[in-house]
Amino acid sequence: MATTGRVTLPIEQGMGDQLPGLLSRLGADAVRNSDGTWLPEITPQLGVKVYETYFPARGNQEFALAHLDARPRFYLMSERVTAPSAEPLAIDIMKGYYTLQVEPDQGDYQRWWEVIDRTTGEVVPVEGWSVTGEGSDVTVTIAEPVAFHVYTVSFLSWQVWDSTQMYNYTTNNWENDPTRVREIGYDVRHPEAWEFMMSSLRTWCEERPEVNVVRFTTFFYHFTLVFNDLGKEKYVDWFGYSASVSPLAMDAFEAEYGYKLRAEDFIDEGYYNNSFRVPTKVFRDWIDFQSRFVCARVKELVDIVHEFDKEALMFLGDTWMGTEPYGKYFAETGMDGVVGSVGSAATCRMISDIPGVKYTEGRFLPYFFPDVFKPGGDPLGEANESWLQARRAISRKPLDRIGYGGYLSLAVQFPDFMARIEQIANEFRSIHEVGHGHLAERSTIRVGVLNAWGELRKWQTHMVAHALWYKQIYSYLGVLESLAGLPFDLQFVSFEDAINGRLDDLDVVLNVGAAGTAFSGGDTWLDPELQGVLRRFVGNGGGLIGIGEPTAVLKGGAYFQLSDVLGVDKELGFSQSSDRYPVETPEHFITADLKGALDVGEGAGDIFATTRDTAILRLQNRSVELAANQAGEGRGVYIAGLPYSHDNARLLHRAIYWAADREADFDHQWIPSNPGVEVAVFEQAGKALVMNNLTGAASTTLTGRTSGLEGDGELRELQLDLEPMESRWIDLA
Amino acid sequence: MATTGRVTLPIEQGMGDQLPGLLSRLGADAVRNSDGTWLPEITPQLGVKVYETYFPARGNQEFALAHLDARPRFYLMSERVTAPSAEPLAIDIMKGYYTLQVEPDQGDYQRWWEVIDRTTGEVVPVEGWSVTGEGSDVTVTIAEPVAFHVYTVSFLSWQVWDSTQMYNYTTNNWENDPTRVREIGYDVRHPEAWEFMMSSLRTWCEERPEVNVVRFTTFFYHFTLVFNDLGKEKYVDWFGYSASVSPLAMDAFEAEYGYKLRAEDFIDEGYYNNSFRVPTKVFRDWIDFQSRFVCARVKELVDIVHEFDKEALMFLGDTWMGTEPYGKYFAETGMDGVVGSVGSAATCRMISDIPGVKYTEGRFLPYFFPDVFKPGGDPLGEANESWLQARRAISRKPLDRIGYGGYLSLAVQFPDFMARIEQIANEFRSIHEVGHGHLAERSTIRVGVLNAWGELRKWQTHMVAHALWYKQIYSYLGVLESLAGLPFDLQFVSFEDAINGRLDDLDVVLNVGAAGTAFSGGDTWLDPELQGVLRRFVGNGGGLIGIGEPTAVLKGGAYFQLSDVLGVDKELGFSQSSDRYPVETPEHFITADLKGALDVGEGAGDIFATTRDTAILRLQNRSVELAANQAGEGRGVYIAGLPYSHDNARLLHRAIYWAADREADFDHQWIPSNPGVEVAVFEQAGKALVMNNLTGAASTTLTGRTSGLEGDGELRELQLDLEPMESRWIDLA
Repeated sequence: MATTGRVTLPIEQGMGDQLPGLLSRLGADAVRNSDGTWLPEITPQLGVKVYETYFPARGNQEFALAHLDARPRFYLMSERVTAPSAEPLAIDIMKGYYTLQVEPDQGDYQRWWEVIDRTTGEVVPVEGWSVTGEGSDVTVTIAEPVAFHVYTVSFLSWQVWDSTQMYNYTTNNWENDPTRVREIGYDVRHPEAWEFMMSSLRTWCEERPEVNVVRFTTFFYHFTLVFNDLGKEKYVDWFGYSASVSPLAMDAFEAEYGYKLRAEDFIDEGYYNNSFRVPTKVFRDWIDFQSRFVCARVKELVDIVHEFDKEALMFLGDTWMGTEPYGKYFAETGMDGVVGSVGSAATCRMISDIPGVKYTEGRFLPYFFPDVFKPGGDPLGEANESWLQARRAISRKPLDRIGYGGYLSLAVQFPDFMARIEQIANEFRSIHEVGHGHLAERSTIRVGVLNAWGELRKWQTHMVAHALWYKQIYSYLGVLESLAGLPFDLQFVSFEDAINGRLDDLDVVLNVGAAGTAFSGGDTWLDPELQGVLRRFVGNGGGLIGIGEPTAVLKGGAYFQLSDVLGVDKELGFSQSSDRYPVETPEHFITADLKGALDVGEGAGDIFATTRDTAILRLQNRSVELAANQAGEGRGVYIAGLPYSHDNARLLHRAIYWAADREADFDHQWIPSNPGVEVAVFEQAGKALVMNNLTGAASTTLTGRTSGLEGDGELRELQLDLEPMESRWIDLA
Repeated sequence: MATTGRVTLPIEQGMGDQLPGLLSRLGADAVRNSDGTWLPEITPQLGVKVYETYFPARGNQEFALAHLDARPRFYLMSERVTAPSAEPLAIDIMKGYYTLQVEPDQGDYQRWWEVIDRTTGEVVPVEGWSVTGEGSDVTVTIAEPVAFHVYTVSFLSWQVWDSTQMYNYTTNNWENDPTRVREIGYDVRHPEAWEFMMSSLRTWCEERPEVNVVRFTTFFYHFTLVFNDLGKEKYVDWFGYSASVSPLAMDAFEAEYGYKLRAEDFIDEGYYNNSFRVPTKVFRDWIDFQSRFVCARVKELVDIVHEFDKEALMFLGDTWMGTEPYGKYFAETGMDGVVGSVGSAATCRMISDIPGVKYTEGRFLPYFFPDVFKPGGDPLGEANESWLQARRAISRKPLDRIGYGGYLSLAVQFPDFMARIEQIANEFRSIHEVGHGHLAERSTIRVGVLNAWGELRKWQTHMVAHALWYKQIYSYLGVLESLAGLPFDLQFVSFEDAINGRLDDLDVVLNVGAAGTAFSGGDTWLDPELQGVLRRFVGNGGGLIGIGEPTAVLKGGAYFQLSDVLGVDKELGFSQSSDRYPVETPEHFITADLKGALDVGEGAGDIFATTRDTAILRLQNRSVELAANQAGEGRGVYIAGLPYSHDNARLLHRAIYWAADREADFDHQWIPSNPGVEVAVFEQAGKALVMNNLTGAASTTLTGRTSGLEGDGELRELQLDLEPMESRWIDLA
């Protein structure tokens, strides 16, 4: 098999002699610089593509300092302050914020700021409060508060320091480095800033004939990332739009949409419309408005890049607001590729599934940084872990390219590591080579994930900060992580899509998440039409899998609004007067491969079966953790939580077959008996990739047809013994 | 000390010779029969008071069978049924019910029954459905349901079998006993039934000159107790009023209150207004209406009893609906006493605190029944456990009498047990004798439990079925159980009381329970006035202790509406974008006696500190389990749950002192250093009762003033070594 291509390596000055050998060994066909490294002079002679990072909205501090009125802003909320009496109440709006990052923007504050009585929800009229102070020492005084009510001040603020650069600066202690400055951004809405962005990109391109790929890191508006008064992270939302505001933008919005925006549209009670909130119409409008604007401007930058016969590559993160790659305007940017950090199978699919670009690239872990590449560090272990996660995803939908970041000079000091990534590069390329552009075969069971966001946040559900662990999400993220490596055609469907008929294309629907969130749906489930659509779907033979607190909103004697389909509901205390006699039936198709206890992570509280007809597959501490329910012609499955593990991925695999009423097919679709092993079938090639996801050796049997998952080929049974982490191509026939 | 009186013993036929000796040994001054036993002929010669049980509303089956139209009814709801299409939907309303207990009452069903679309909450017009069938085979057909909506039928039903007698019948397998019949009740609203009740009581009294005390077991309407189609308990609410309905009563209600009742007022989405539901105005009206009626009728029965120079004693339970002893009409009944089963310290206080009666009596565990009094049974152990629980309560507020129930002939076969209850009787009497009618001294810290029920359900919060363990309640019941033995003046305050100024009489307020329930308050907390009353209370130096999900209802960016006072809130998923840096400060006045881990029972989910000022005293799995917060002049304490234990009772004891800003007093108020030991100070007697609550020996020091808890007496420190379970009187000076 070919051993060249599809790999990007970070290079740096001072390694000139070693580079040709390293590139050849890894089959790398592209190089890049990283934050803090520069391309060596030899670069043009390496015969590979050259990437260089580019920062459109903070690259030039001279411009930034000369145009402080062009700094981006965000909407922030003060602390909640209780009025101890009806005397005037002074609120230090900056309390808890970092003065090096935040400075209130007092311009036309009566239009843009808002004081709210949170006890009643009423807005305090602008005549009722005043602002004193300047800079970052600003007080809002409410003249006549209602005693014992809680007040907040929503205020527009300058971003005095770019959030990502601030993060790098404080994390790496650059305050001791005299060559570093605190970088300020500039807002693309500002006419001079926009002119400057275009002209400086043009100049940059002119000056760099050796660069083939402009790696935008990223564009204009940062995700919401605010620091506290101790300089530590205070609020983070990787999907946040509250740092994209400006009077200019909000006025333009009003002109177009015909209604005024108010601070609370962004502040959202202090939750800042994070992606767990069921989105309001206004916030959806804002996303649409800003995305359209941002994508249009990005297109102009991409056009400049193309003028110079270079490619435009977007880094998925940082100042990516408005360029969500599954958004409806992204394809119009003309972007050539997207590169993103791969932290899991799900984040890998988030990148590899992006439509409308020529290529996707995953930046693998670990970074070549001294926190891992040091004596006692385990770069090899991290590379293995990262690859085992990513390989599951890549086998289903390959990234076009992979790459690394950081200091190559550090990595080469770890020969085991270098040898391993050489293997990984080859393993990666083999999937492309065998597949010949065809994807691995998928089950004919069509699966959809149903939530408030749908396609816009494909593979991005239940995420707070990119790929980080949070207590409230891991039990749900495991569902995505499992699906990222399972052979299903997966759709992400919004509630609106569901009402508009999208469920017709599906066999099994998943609703996953905590009550009240955008992912389970919250109040949206009060809509009888939505309920009806789901019940019709199941009535027609579809399957509904609920995980956590699916369809949860208290009404009419039920908490899970589709408790009739799922066969379970949650005890909030009101129905404990009803006696229950739960009986566990542990043997079931869904649990056939589950040898130990079911791990439901944080679980979902006290779940009970609504009728005796519900099959309780796992009962723990008097609560149902897994249930299966025949609901008319269709089926419901309930799981209390599903953190990722091999066992849980297998459980979900089986649950989907059961929900689709297709369990009869399960045993001859090349599904290994060992849940630690997975198979991707490339039926056009007549081959299958058998992957041992375990770090130890694994034995397994598997049975399938010579024709692949489907078709009328004859049945074959194989017995395989696999090395630790091994992937092996087998012939189907 | 005297060793006679205040004790009631069950006696039975065939033990004549032994009785005088047994009565003397135990100092019993009263005897009673039990279910299934009859008083022996010697009874009048025993020289003690004689109790006999009396059942006003089911005592005569001849009358019952002759007046089937007088049977009591209840309101029941069918199963939830999903319409699979718009075709007529037939609902078998009896599905899941026990035909031997339930028979639909089709009289004027269009007025009394209700078909509800639970998906929308709308009532289906009576023209839209019809009833077919008879007896217990009844179907309701909805002519034109909306496809995929969920429907229920609320129907009025006859009680074909008295619930308590049914329970005894099925539990004791009386179906094999030809002398037993299934007893039917009769409704006191029925004029003939009422006439019969009065005349038969009169006759009964006439025929029993030897009986001194008529033990009513109980009156007219049973608490809600419904069985399922397998004859097992289906729904139980010890406080339920849904078995008190009848067209007669509801018409009378309408005439008085001026508005019509509907089925849903009782059905309440299938929750039947159990005491965890925040009560509606209608339901409160119904309680008032029925209580007034029931108490008036009870008064007439009591008057008859008094005519015969007998006393009237009410058993607290079974058909006790409308005679809730803390209700506003109960005292008017003229009842002489109340007897109830003591299952814990809290249920003991529930009885001993009843106002307006001449005496209270606790029926202790174990019953002299063959389930315990058998080879291998441990009656002694149960007696000890029961006594240790009750003694805590009795030392604070004594019952006037104690007693036992069951078959004395069984108990006498266990001499250890008989010896122990002899000791218990003496220990019990000593509290009365030393106290001389004075209660043990209480801390000057005035404590209130704040919930929707207030005084009406004093000591009865968080209870589903009398004194039974439920998963969702034990973490809250522990608060009551702790308080029942702590030296505080305890008020039960409703939200309405709080708004009307009742907090002025308190120093510390507790709000305890799960979100949305009547005990934490649910939507009631949306009332700014209520919030304001609490904040003013704390602002004036009061303390608020929240346990579980206090003040919880999502609004305005907070879930705990008084999160500003408590210093904590609960993470529902919306605010996880906010970074938290919890730091535990384990050393604190509140935790000073807590040696091991804090047991919060089921806990309350993910609790976080709202500011850095909150002192996190216990942090577990990233969640705050115990916190203390200075809130202006007052203080807030948060505890995630408090199942009863010696350690938790002590923790609450300390938390109350801290919340009241009185921790400086704690060390010299005769509070033992050992949390397994408690002290009741009788300052008028100059004595204190030191109680070892442990089943092992205990050593402790205690320091207090010779004047009692307060006063200017000099300080004394004692060192005591106590036998297992010992109680010892010490002199204060």
